Amino acid sequence: MASDPLYTTVVPPEWVDYNGHLRDAYYGLICSYATDALMDQIGLDAAGRACTHGSLFTLESHIHYLHEVKLGAQVQVQLQLLGCDAKRLHIFLRLVLSGRAEPVAVCEQMLLHVDIRGPRSAVFPTDVLARVQGMAAAHRALPVPALVGRVMQLPGALPS
Amino acid sequence: MASDPLYTTVVPPEWVDYNGHLRDAYYGLICSYATDALMDQIGLDAAGRACTHGSLFTLESHIHYLHEVKLGAQVQVQLQLLGCDAKRLHIFLRLVLSGRAEPVAVCEQMLLHVDIRGPRSAVFPTDVLARVQGMAAAHRALPVPALVGRVMQLPGALPS
Repeated sequence: MASDPLYTTVVPPEWVDYNGHLRDAYYGLICSYATDALMDQIGLDAAGRACTHGSLFTLESHIHYLHEVKLGAQVQVQLQLLGCDAKRLHIFLRLVLSGRAEPVAVCEQMLLHVDIRGPRSAVFPTDVLARVQGMAAAHRALPVPALVGRVMQLPGALPS
Repeated sequence: MASDPLYTTVVPPEWVDYNGHLRDAYYGLICSYATDALMDQIGLDAAGRACTHGSLFTLESHIHYLHEVKLGAQVQVQLQLLGCDAKRLHIFLRLVLSGRAEPVAVCEQMLLHVDIRGPRSAVFPTDVLARVQGMAAAHRALPVPALVGRVMQLPGALPS
């Protein structure tokens, strides 16, 4: 897991639910903003998108909620690139409170590069692909996190 | 899949991203509000929560994004209860545009009943459990949707 956070935010009042905790969907919004930051890093920022008409669409997102998060908490998002091909990124995000090691949530996502003029799937521009492949090489030695690929089921349910 | 929608909303401007589409996290917010509506249906509304100190925490949420949704679209959420035990609900939500059959997204979630005074997991109050079991009986004959339990992976990747 990369140690430099991809994205950092502080939980505002409008993200907190009647239990006084960060509402489940806003963990997802933090992941969404982190993915925007990833786009900036690989050259799919606003300028890049205007030039190539490329953007990332989320195909799937699987969040595991591990701990409550309260109003005003500072949340950092760490990225691990699990895999990629010519038009897809398979990513893993860890949400941690600043100064803590244990994640409050983790999120596995599949992202697709899309030409928004279709919209239709499209291979990454050459410079973006080079950055993605550089990141993949840097993350290749990292262990696969335990919750990746976990199938949701009630305790005691038999695997089908 | 139950035909009566659990929850209906219209996509407001603040949920739309730079692509002019509903941002991924706000599909999750629609699911979150639908789950609030489910809580109302089973007796975990504000009055019930004040009485029993029980609430539902989301343990996992896995969204499959199938189609873009635009500003002003009316989105309905349909519920299928996949399973339950004394303190958990395993649910499946279909997000459809009003008047259409094909979902724009589906979401599988595991929800845990929690006594918020801990917080600690807790069995459902008797009347809530009766409603949950009635719903489970009504949904038992429904086929399991194709995307339930799907493991995220890049195309061509071998199952591990």
